[in-house]
Amino acid sequence: MELVSQSRSFGGWLKRYRHQSTCLDSSMIFAIYLPPQAEKGPVPVLYWLSGLTCTDENFMQKAGAQRIAAELGLAIVCPDTSPRNTGIATEDDEIDIGTGAGFYLNATEAPWNKHYQMYDYVVDELPQLINANFTLSDKCSISGHSMGGHGAITVALKNPGKYCSVSAFAPISNPTGTERGEYRFSTYLGKDKSTWAQYDASLLVANAKEKLPLLVDQGDKDEMIEGLRPEALREACAAADYPLTLRMQAGYDHGYFFVATFIEEHLRYHASALGLKA
Amino acid sequence: MELVSQSRSFGGWLKRYRHQSTCLDSSMIFAIYLPPQAEKGPVPVLYWLSGLTCTDENFMQKAGAQRIAAELGLAIVCPDTSPRNTGIATEDDEIDIGTGAGFYLNATEAPWNKHYQMYDYVVDELPQLINANFTLSDKCSISGHSMGGHGAITVALKNPGKYCSVSAFAPISNPTGTERGEYRFSTYLGKDKSTWAQYDASLLVANAKEKLPLLVDQGDKDEMIEGLRPEALREACAAADYPLTLRMQAGYDHGYFFVATFIEEHLRYHASALGLKA
Repeated sequence: MELVSQSRSFGGWLKRYRHQSTCLDSSMIFAIYLPPQAEKGPVPVLYWLSGLTCTDENFMQKAGAQRIAAELGLAIVCPDTSPRNTGIATEDDEIDIGTGAGFYLNATEAPWNKHYQMYDYVVDELPQLINANFTLSDKCSISGHSMGGHGAITVALKNPGKYCSVSAFAPISNPTGTERGEYRFSTYLGKDKSTWAQYDASLLVANAKEKLPLLVDQGDKDEMIEGLRPEALREACAAADYPLTLRMQAGYDHGYFFVATFIEEHLRYHASALGLKA
Repeated sequence: MELVSQSRSFGGWLKRYRHQSTCLDSSMIFAIYLPPQAEKGPVPVLYWLSGLTCTDENFMQKAGAQRIAAELGLAIVCPDTSPRNTGIATEDDEIDIGTGAGFYLNATEAPWNKHYQMYDYVVDELPQLINANFTLSDKCSISGHSMGGHGAITVALKNPGKYCSVSAFAPISNPTGTERGEYRFSTYLGKDKSTWAQYDASLLVANAKEKLPLLVDQGDKDEMIEGLRPEALREACAAADYPLTLRMQAGYDHGYFFVATFIEEHLRYHASALGLKA
C-alpha cells in the first residue's frame, strides 16, 4: 500500500491509499476515514459503495460523514467503483459500463471478466487488506448510493452474518427489471438470465438466509427513479416478509445534497447496530 | 436571472442562478442556500467568498454548511471567484491570474479592468440582486477561504457598518508581503504600490473605522502558509489594537476538509452576530 494523500478531518484522518488488487488485476485507490478514537483502540468500520462515475473521493468530499463518524468512533472505507485503465478497449465508451461502473459484481463475459471482479474485491480482498493494515474491530456494516446502494444491499444479502447492518440511498433496486439494467447485466454476465438474480436486490430478498433490517432513503423527485425501481423492492420485501424501511423523501433528487441530508441518520443507525453509542 | 439548478438540501433549497453582471460585463453564476425558515419570512444571509480555482459550487458541495444553516435559519450566498470567458487572451494562462482568481478587487490595469471588478460585484451588485429577488433580512455577514478569506476581511474592513460579522479560513492575509502577491497586484492594479494597500488585510487594520472582531482559523500544516502570512495579520492587529482571534489548528492543511471541520463554529459565530439563536 502506498499513501496517496492524507488530511486531518474532524480530529481524525482521511487517508487515501493505492494498492495492487489481485482479483481485479488493477491498481486501485481506496479512502479510509479514521476517527480520533482509532488512535486509542479498534473501531468498527462502515463500507460505503459509491455510484456510477464516482471514485473513492465523492462520498468523503460531499456527504459530510466524517463529522458524525468522528463523534461516533466509526471508521469509513470507500473503495473505487471499478478497476481503471485496464486496457479494455471499450472501458470508457459508456457511462454505465466499464470505468466507474463495476456494479459490484463478478463479470463472467470477456473482455470484462479479467478485471471486473468488484464483488470479490469489496467482499473479500479489500476488507482483508483493511484489517491487515488498520486496527479495526471485527464489526462492519455496509451502505451505498445508487449503483452503490445496489452493491450494499446485494452484498449484505449474499453474506449473512458478515455485516451488522445495511442501508442504501436511492439504490438500483431491481436491475433486471429495466432495459438498461438488462443491457448492463448481459454485458457483464452474459445472456443467461439465471445468472443475473444473484445481483438483484429485489430477487435476492425472497431467499435471504438472514433478515437484516434494510433502511432505504429515496428522493421522490429523483430524476433516475424509473431505473431504480424502489417499488419493486417494496413489493419483493412485502412478499418475502423481509424487514424494509423505505422512506420516500419529499422533494429530494438523486444527488449528494440528498445523501448529505440523511447521512447522519444512517450513520447513527449503523453505529447502533455496531454497538457504538449512537 | 435564470435558474440553473435546484436541489433540496436539509429541508431547504440550494439554487444556482445565472445572470448578466453589469460591473463585470460577464455572465455570472451564483449559488444561494435558502434554509427552511426562508419560506416563512426574511432570514439573514452569509456571503461566502471562495478561493483560487473555485466556482460557486465548491463550498456548497464540500463544506457541509447547509446542515447548520438549516438549523440556524441562515441563508448563504456563494458568488463565483471571477468573471469567465471574457475574451481576455491570457485569462486561463495562470492559476492565480484571470479565471478563478478575481481576488475581490477592482482591476485598473488593461486588459483586466474591463471585466475584473469583483470588489464592486461582491459588495454592491450581487447583494442588490439578491435583495431584490429573495426575501432576506437586512442583516448580513461575510466569510471566505484562502483568496476568499482575503476577500472577506478586506471587504468587511472597507465597509464599516455593512456586515454584522466577519471570519476567514486560511486567508491570504498580507498579499503585498510576498513576491507572488506583488505579481498579482501589479498585474491587476499596476506598479504603483500605494494602490495596493486597500486590498491588503494586514495594512487595512491600522486604519479600520470599525473594529469588527475578526475570527480566523488557520491549519498549521497548511501547505500554502508562506503565501498566507497569518503572522503578519497577527502583528498588524496587535499593533492596531484590532480584535483578532487567530486559531492555529494543529495538523490541518489548506483544503476543504479543514473548512468542513470548523465551519460549524464559524456559522454559529455569525448567527450570534446576526441575532439568530446560535
